[in-house]
Amino acid sequence: MNNPSNASPQDAALSILIKEIGSFHLGGRQVTLAGLPPKEMTFSTKGLPLVVDPNGEVEVEQMYVQFVKLAQPKSKLPLLLWHGGGLTGVTYETKPDGAPGWQMYFLRAGWDTYVSDAVERGRASWARYPEIFKTEPIFRTKKEAWDLFRIGPAYHPDPAQRLAYPQTEFPTEAFDQLAKQAVPRWLTNDAVTQKAYDAYVQKMGPCVIVVHSQSGYFGLQAALNNPDNVKALVLVEPHGSHDPSQTDLSAFKNIPTLWVWGDYVNDVPFWSKIYQQQENFRAQLLKHGARADLLNLPAAGLQGNSHMPMMDRNSDAIAALIQKWLVEHTSQSTNMQNVLSR
Amino acid sequence: MNNPSNASPQDAALSILIKEIGSFHLGGRQVTLAGLPPKEMTFSTKGLPLVVDPNGEVEVEQMYVQFVKLAQPKSKLPLLLWHGGGLTGVTYETKPDGAPGWQMYFLRAGWDTYVSDAVERGRASWARYPEIFKTEPIFRTKKEAWDLFRIGPAYHPDPAQRLAYPQTEFPTEAFDQLAKQAVPRWLTNDAVTQKAYDAYVQKMGPCVIVVHSQSGYFGLQAALNNPDNVKALVLVEPHGSHDPSQTDLSAFKNIPTLWVWGDYVNDVPFWSKIYQQQENFRAQLLKHGARADLLNLPAAGLQGNSHMPMMDRNSDAIAALIQKWLVEHTSQSTNMQNVLSR
Repeated sequence: MNNPSNASPQDAALSILIKEIGSFHLGGRQVTLAGLPPKEMTFSTKGLPLVVDPNGEVEVEQMYVQFVKLAQPKSKLPLLLWHGGGLTGVTYETKPDGAPGWQMYFLRAGWDTYVSDAVERGRASWARYPEIFKTEPIFRTKKEAWDLFRIGPAYHPDPAQRLAYPQTEFPTEAFDQLAKQAVPRWLTNDAVTQKAYDAYVQKMGPCVIVVHSQSGYFGLQAALNNPDNVKALVLVEPHGSHDPSQTDLSAFKNIPTLWVWGDYVNDVPFWSKIYQQQENFRAQLLKHGARADLLNLPAAGLQGNSHMPMMDRNSDAIAALIQKWLVEHTSQSTNMQNVLSR
Repeated sequence: MNNPSNASPQDAALSILIKEIGSFHLGGRQVTLAGLPPKEMTFSTKGLPLVVDPNGEVEVEQMYVQFVKLAQPKSKLPLLLWHGGGLTGVTYETKPDGAPGWQMYFLRAGWDTYVSDAVERGRASWARYPEIFKTEPIFRTKKEAWDLFRIGPAYHPDPAQRLAYPQTEFPTEAFDQLAKQAVPRWLTNDAVTQKAYDAYVQKMGPCVIVVHSQSGYFGLQAALNNPDNVKALVLVEPHGSHDPSQTDLSAFKNIPTLWVWGDYVNDVPFWSKIYQQQENFRAQLLKHGARADLLNLPAAGLQGNSHMPMMDRNSDAIAALIQKWLVEHTSQSTNMQNVLSR
């Protein structure tokens, strides 16, 4: 893995000029823990017992955001990439097979990118339970990931015996790399997670958001809570539970939305039901005069996509369709059309 | 936080040309959980109880590495930045006060940078206890961070009443931002953490490593375990427990080392004791003919540094001293001297 001291001309053509890479935590609150018993613990390399007093002030329920700002962005607005449940912002980084993911794609397309870890996950950290978080977390098994992410019809502990969908674009040989990206998940943190996401959108100002799976719910709610800041919302295989009849859809009047779905949705009842719910929601948006588009990948000629299209082999082709839609429908706010048509 | 579509000439002068930003997980192992009782859980936004079966295969004890590769690195070798206990790679990103940290400094200096989250932390994820990790984790309070990181002599729950060292370079107004970076810590994971770090060094090949605090131990051990790959080791306020009389120091014959210490070390008995242990270890390295240098910041004219010099206001000045030492003592392997003297 040594690095050449000089890049080839081909590399240089693909290079991007960066102004700053950085990060911040935001949201959350201070709590004071009191009355917890001190515990005697042992450091493994020392062998000496140590009494740890857990009481005092701690920060909880914050989230983490990492940004890459371009020296010369083509979009006036930043692109926010939100991950799904039991995962982190790693979702958008290098793919399990080692190829560049959507973060790199959208950077090359000219967007300042912001990749976050929601409350409870990754670099956002997590808090004691039951004192702060109300329940214990759940840990996703490989079988659940194989089934839920629609990699194939039959998981097996032995990788050689796992059955993938014949046309799958997911790099099944790298499935265990995806499994290493999994983080524990709480089922009782939605309110505090939403609160942090809302603070994030308020801090960012005008922005474009791409959400995936569980963050479909958070993204729709963030748009409802801060409609002036969300200039477009791309919902990739979203899992949400908004009842359109109980929701004031007027917030979406000026927010173009795009739903993106992969293949095999009808092979998994869990997903076909969610797909129908989302399509019902989208239909109501259309009735209200909002732009609410559907990118059904198989219908668009792209077969074999899993629940993780940003990790599939053809992820760039999908990103290109999203990018095209964004240029068409956010040019007033991003100024991207002007740049691309120069 | 809108982004200008055109950078100013001043910005462009500070920009860096990037080949790729990405990440990977490595190390760890698959375990099969069996015999755990299924649990009935409730999703908070749904209200529907769900039975979760925790049994099956999961990945555990992996670590996370994020890299930024330059289009035209000035060093032939990558720079690996390892964080301390209860923290993540965020340590080296944007500082709590919002200014760029050491990751950006060393990128601008011409290094491909690799910032990792060790086993159990951040995007590396963590595993069930007591089934995989043997104990419960500990959560650092703000008071412990204030005291242990040598921000000042007296913590107080009310930020306005916290007493900092008069000359401190730590941005005390941003202390809570540092508190948000804290992650839970296990005291019984040192062996698996070392194993992942060793796999990391083996994967990287020749490299230069900067360690901080707890990772001082892991860095010294990584050098002992893979002496051919570690071309230099910078130990920033390291916390380790190697007994030089029980250690084969010949591994360090070709590994230049630099110990970096901040201010107020003698004001905190915990640190003055560790400082003496580290100085004893360094003295033995010198006796064995190894290069083992000391950068005592107050002695070098830099007063007021905390245990977190990469977050202090004068972090760039400290990085510049480290960079100067690296150029002087790694030029054969990094080729940096040649580049800088052009």
